[in-house]
Amino acid sequence: MTELDHDVVAIATRAREVAQEVARLDASTRNTALRTAAAALTEAAPAISIANQDDLEQARAAGVRGALLDRLSLTPSRLDGMADGLRAVAALPDVLGEVVEEWRRPNGLLLRRVRVPLGVIAVIYEARPNVTSDVAGLCLKSGNACILRGSSVAIRTNKVLVDTLREALQASDVPVDAVQLVSDTGRAAAASLMRCRGLVDLLIPRGGPALIADIVETSTVPYVIDGDGNCHVYVDAAADQDKARRIVLNAKLSKPSVCNAAEKLLVDESIAADFLPGVAAELSAAGVELRGDDGARELVPAMATATDADWDREYLDLVMSVRVVAGVDGAIAHVRAHSSGHTEAIVTEDRATATRFIEGCPSAVVMVNASTRFTDGAEFGYGAEIGNSTQRLHARGPMGVRELTTYRIEVWGDGQVRE
Amino acid sequence: MTELDHDVVAIATRAREVAQEVARLDASTRNTALRTAAAALTEAAPAISIANQDDLEQARAAGVRGALLDRLSLTPSRLDGMADGLRAVAALPDVLGEVVEEWRRPNGLLLRRVRVPLGVIAVIYEARPNVTSDVAGLCLKSGNACILRGSSVAIRTNKVLVDTLREALQASDVPVDAVQLVSDTGRAAAASLMRCRGLVDLLIPRGGPALIADIVETSTVPYVIDGDGNCHVYVDAAADQDKARRIVLNAKLSKPSVCNAAEKLLVDESIAADFLPGVAAELSAAGVELRGDDGARELVPAMATATDADWDREYLDLVMSVRVVAGVDGAIAHVRAHSSGHTEAIVTEDRATATRFIEGCPSAVVMVNASTRFTDGAEFGYGAEIGNSTQRLHARGPMGVRELTTYRIEVWGDGQVRE
Repeated sequence: MTELDHDVVAIATRAREVAQEVARLDASTRNTALRTAAAALTEAAPAISIANQDDLEQARAAGVRGALLDRLSLTPSRLDGMADGLRAVAALPDVLGEVVEEWRRPNGLLLRRVRVPLGVIAVIYEARPNVTSDVAGLCLKSGNACILRGSSVAIRTNKVLVDTLREALQASDVPVDAVQLVSDTGRAAAASLMRCRGLVDLLIPRGGPALIADIVETSTVPYVIDGDGNCHVYVDAAADQDKARRIVLNAKLSKPSVCNAAEKLLVDESIAADFLPGVAAELSAAGVELRGDDGARELVPAMATATDADWDREYLDLVMSVRVVAGVDGAIAHVRAHSSGHTEAIVTEDRATATRFIEGCPSAVVMVNASTRFTDGAEFGYGAEIGNSTQRLHARGPMGVRELTTYRIEVWGDGQVRE
Repeated sequence: MTELDHDVVAIATRAREVAQEVARLDASTRNTALRTAAAALTEAAPAISIANQDDLEQARAAGVRGALLDRLSLTPSRLDGMADGLRAVAALPDVLGEVVEEWRRPNGLLLRRVRVPLGVIAVIYEARPNVTSDVAGLCLKSGNACILRGSSVAIRTNKVLVDTLREALQASDVPVDAVQLVSDTGRAAAASLMRCRGLVDLLIPRGGPALIADIVETSTVPYVIDGDGNCHVYVDAAADQDKARRIVLNAKLSKPSVCNAAEKLLVDESIAADFLPGVAAELSAAGVELRGDDGARELVPAMATATDADWDREYLDLVMSVRVVAGVDGAIAHVRAHSSGHTEAIVTEDRATATRFIEGCPSAVVMVNASTRFTDGAEFGYGAEIGNSTQRLHARGPMGVRELTTYRIEVWGDGQVRE
């Protein structure tokens, strides 16, 4: 690693300086600023739209197509959604200053864990411009300064968005540098951000495996990995097959491009002949390419053969691999070997089997008789999410406002000294 | 980074495999194993002593002297302390399976955060052999498999200790590989341990700045930094000066070699003439070398001059630097510029000033009218500690059993699918 990018260090230093001021803002100032920012986005819609059209044109000229282009596109309804998101975050209960725990020691010392902001949060993300306002909103709500580093394809949109948000902060007596954009979208700038140790308290990568590998290798600042979702649905012998059918179809079809979509279907061998052909036909009819192991292909010969690589893959597409397993223990063994730690689901009416599955899966979230698609900050009642942790340290699953905080320990005494 | 050490990877792989079994042990099995291990240490005292004498002889021959030799030495009373420590951990309440939080969503889904072990915990540490049993005990209590990597100077002692602990596990129906020692004390083995991503869930370095720098640079596994303690005591204008005197003397003198000892004394300018000469005389009489800024030296001319470097240093010795500051805001500004984030203390009878200090300090623990020496797992009531976090992510301050856990999210439904 050579020298750090001067501009990035300046941004991080400024964030560090301002973090203390942001932490001290009262809830009403933070919430007013969030609502002001929401209104500002709506007011700035024409300018934002022009910038977004520029980004889209450049992207098209560079050969960008399909899903990426769609994610980049900021339609009026999406911009409304961003403003609504800021208002929803403003409406969430405040968590700062909460006494998480309080206890007294025999020597009279009173100890309190009090919830405080993490400090400076940096997020490296891809094309979707709504991440810009989501991250800024959640960080302000939780009393943190944030550093945004979006993708080059969205840079014009992000610049206008961040300028708009900062003007709203200024109008609300919040330091404008509570929200900063790294406008250099090159790799060196990102790498520098990963190495601002002592300046950045938490880095969240919202991107693919290459970004995550880069952070694991390069980062000297603390990070939480928002990793892949190779999510499994296991249909147990004791499943209500109608629930199972609905859950499998919903988990695969309702939004195949996201990390909480199901990628694998595991079916207990004792009900596979009953259950699998019907659901496979429905999935195929909906355009899903199915790939099976021998057991699945015996029952549904039209399936392609799943390769070893299939079991570890997150397709993010209309593809699903299917395996016939020997009961809940077979399902657990498969999940343990192949899960990315995101979300698994079991469909069963047998509570003991459900508990066995929950305890056997190493994943952040385990659903019983519910679609994997519920792993989401809004669906969990967090109001919004800044990402979804697939690691075990600090936070697991959807990360909302509370996951952007830590605690300090206050010890109140009356002259106590240690023996 | 070249290839990983084969033996280290094998140990970590085995730990990963066994972690699931350890996580499933019931509390009574874990506690019985801890008590059996305590008895085994006492029984094995002669063998442990012989190994420790070997280590001490080798260390002396290699020129090791003073404090390091003392830390390495395992006297009968220290071994008793280790056994007592295991019994104390056995007696702690169990935290696994605890429902940390439970809530229901409007769609009927029931969500539960349930406390579970982190999985595999690795600790890299220095000469003190008691860390071996402390870490093993806390990890077993919290349902984690552990990997111990002690110092070369203690390798013979550690081997006998770990063998003894493993025999006790075997006798208690706990997988012996719940506790493993990396017997290769070379740097390549440590570096390999730092890179067992996917196998190690948490790495805790208990060592000096060189080890921490190495981990920050090399590690691809999640870690929590157990960093320096450059702890400050600020004596406010509204202090009870007698309490202040006792707290300063205790914080500096009761154990100068540990991270929660005070290294810096800040005194408000309005009471410095009253307070400082007396306490300085007592500190000097106790053998403390004082180094002051101009304000302090004006009042106590015998003090040496503190250099810029002094303000950032953790002495771990009978040295203290003293600064006269302009009230609580002056103290906060100094702490913010120089704290290592461990522990600060304020002595004041003014609650508003205490709160201002607490909110202004960026440190994990802030004491009001109490000695900095109370930052300690046992003193906090955690029973024991595996380290003291000076970072903001996951845990702050002393890390006990609970800090070695995470949570999984269970979602209980009845066929819910997402719109």
